[in-house]
Amino acid sequence: MSEKHLQTGDVLPPYNGKIRLYAMRFCPYAERAVLVLNAKKLEYDLIFINLDHKPEWIFNFSPRGTVPALEYEQGKAIFDSNIVTTYLDEKYPENPLQASDPLRRAQDKIIVENFAAAQSAYYTAAFNPQALEPSSVEKFHKGLEAFQAELEGRGTKFLHGDEPGWVDYTIWPFLERFEALPLLGKSEFAIDKTKYELLANYIEAMKNVPAVKAYYLSAETHAKFTESRNKGDANYNMLDTSAVCCMRPRKKKE
Amino acid sequence: MSEKHLQTGDVLPPYNGKIRLYAMRFCPYAERAVLVLNAKKLEYDLIFINLDHKPEWIFNFSPRGTVPALEYEQGKAIFDSNIVTTYLDEKYPENPLQASDPLRRAQDKIIVENFAAAQSAYYTAAFNPQALEPSSVEKFHKGLEAFQAELEGRGTKFLHGDEPGWVDYTIWPFLERFEALPLLGKSEFAIDKTKYELLANYIEAMKNVPAVKAYYLSAETHAKFTESRNKGDANYNMLDTSAVCCMRPRKKKE
Repeated sequence: MSEKHLQTGDVLPPYNGKIRLYAMRFCPYAERAVLVLNAKKLEYDLIFINLDHKPEWIFNFSPRGTVPALEYEQGKAIFDSNIVTTYLDEKYPENPLQASDPLRRAQDKIIVENFAAAQSAYYTAAFNPQALEPSSVEKFHKGLEAFQAELEGRGTKFLHGDEPGWVDYTIWPFLERFEALPLLGKSEFAIDKTKYELLANYIEAMKNVPAVKAYYLSAETHAKFTESRNKGDANYNMLDTSAVCCMRPRKKKE
Repeated sequence: MSEKHLQTGDVLPPYNGKIRLYAMRFCPYAERAVLVLNAKKLEYDLIFINLDHKPEWIFNFSPRGTVPALEYEQGKAIFDSNIVTTYLDEKYPENPLQASDPLRRAQDKIIVENFAAAQSAYYTAAFNPQALEPSSVEKFHKGLEAFQAELEGRGTKFLHGDEPGWVDYTIWPFLERFEALPLLGKSEFAIDKTKYELLANYIEAMKNVPAVKAYYLSAETHAKFTESRNKGDANYNMLDTSAVCCMRPRKKKE
């Protein structure tokens, strides 16, 4: 894995036969793919890139230069978080993460689709706070309430079941970041443990899932990165090397 | 099927045991679901709704009142065109429309994703022409070129293969409508048969696919509807009853 975010002018590390994920350490969409790779216990390399000064070669893997992109074979890649995670789950059928029932798969996708409004409220609150309207706060909490209602309706520890699945790993990166909002002065986005008891328990349970734990960053860390980005100088490499080691997914840990 | 677009105040027709698709006759997203239902040779009822004066009950099936929504069981529905079409293909495994290879499925989704820029240029040109910029025309043609390059690269009659598949039925509703743009005075959006020889042949081949033919509307019809919508009074019921009969999908025709 690249320990720093590679940028314009940096060379692409030599291909070593493993699948490679192009990511940015703080990107929630890239995190979806990392979590699925971890949960599937796949071997992979991570290449972090600086999204403000993109290395030229990223466009060979991701036509718009977005992350995540997955180099599944030397020089050949697919992109878009949901396309990548679904591909991984179907290409490597061990430890399936999608529901086996087609209707449940559709419902899981609808949960993700419905959660998008809360995500977009989060983005406004974190990165464009002057555009924040009361309706954003409302959308955010409506999204959380709907999510909690799903948890309640399903009655399982995770949305997928006793273990997390595709739907949990797809939503999680945002829940992880939502906890940074009160630290950024946005207390109206706090996830109150009384109102959101079930959701709060779910969040704690997710933090203890090995695939999540290996890549988890604290609310404080997310808040720090957000502040650096809002100052116009996103500090991609703010985590020191030892921290990067800790994030190394699973291989050394298991 | 409802022969007119049902609107605020209209009652929901009684459920008759068949799956029901909530649609709008001119909506390309709803058309995706119709084409997949046709291609899978499923029995279904169509309920057309007026999107400017939505019947109250649509929100029971589609939380944002969008179409398509699929009532797969009385009172229970899923929505979003791609979620609906994928569900149908997986729930009813006969006549599979998605590629069997996970990588090819990912690539098909990427084609759809990449085509979105051309779709959005089409929407601007058709419904918001004063916002049209040279870059829209460029995006439109880039999208067509990329699509044609895929056709060439795959070397098959349809993107899916010898027969159309999910990817073809997902893109088609837009290609059908693109042909209306020159009739709306947008000649820069014409699909020139010399430059786009392969694509033009593909378009003609798609028009002859039974699943498409049963629901196809001419460029003239699409242009007429667009004009009515742009005048602020979308003429949902502009097609006469006999025309609606002709659109009745397959059951009587086969």
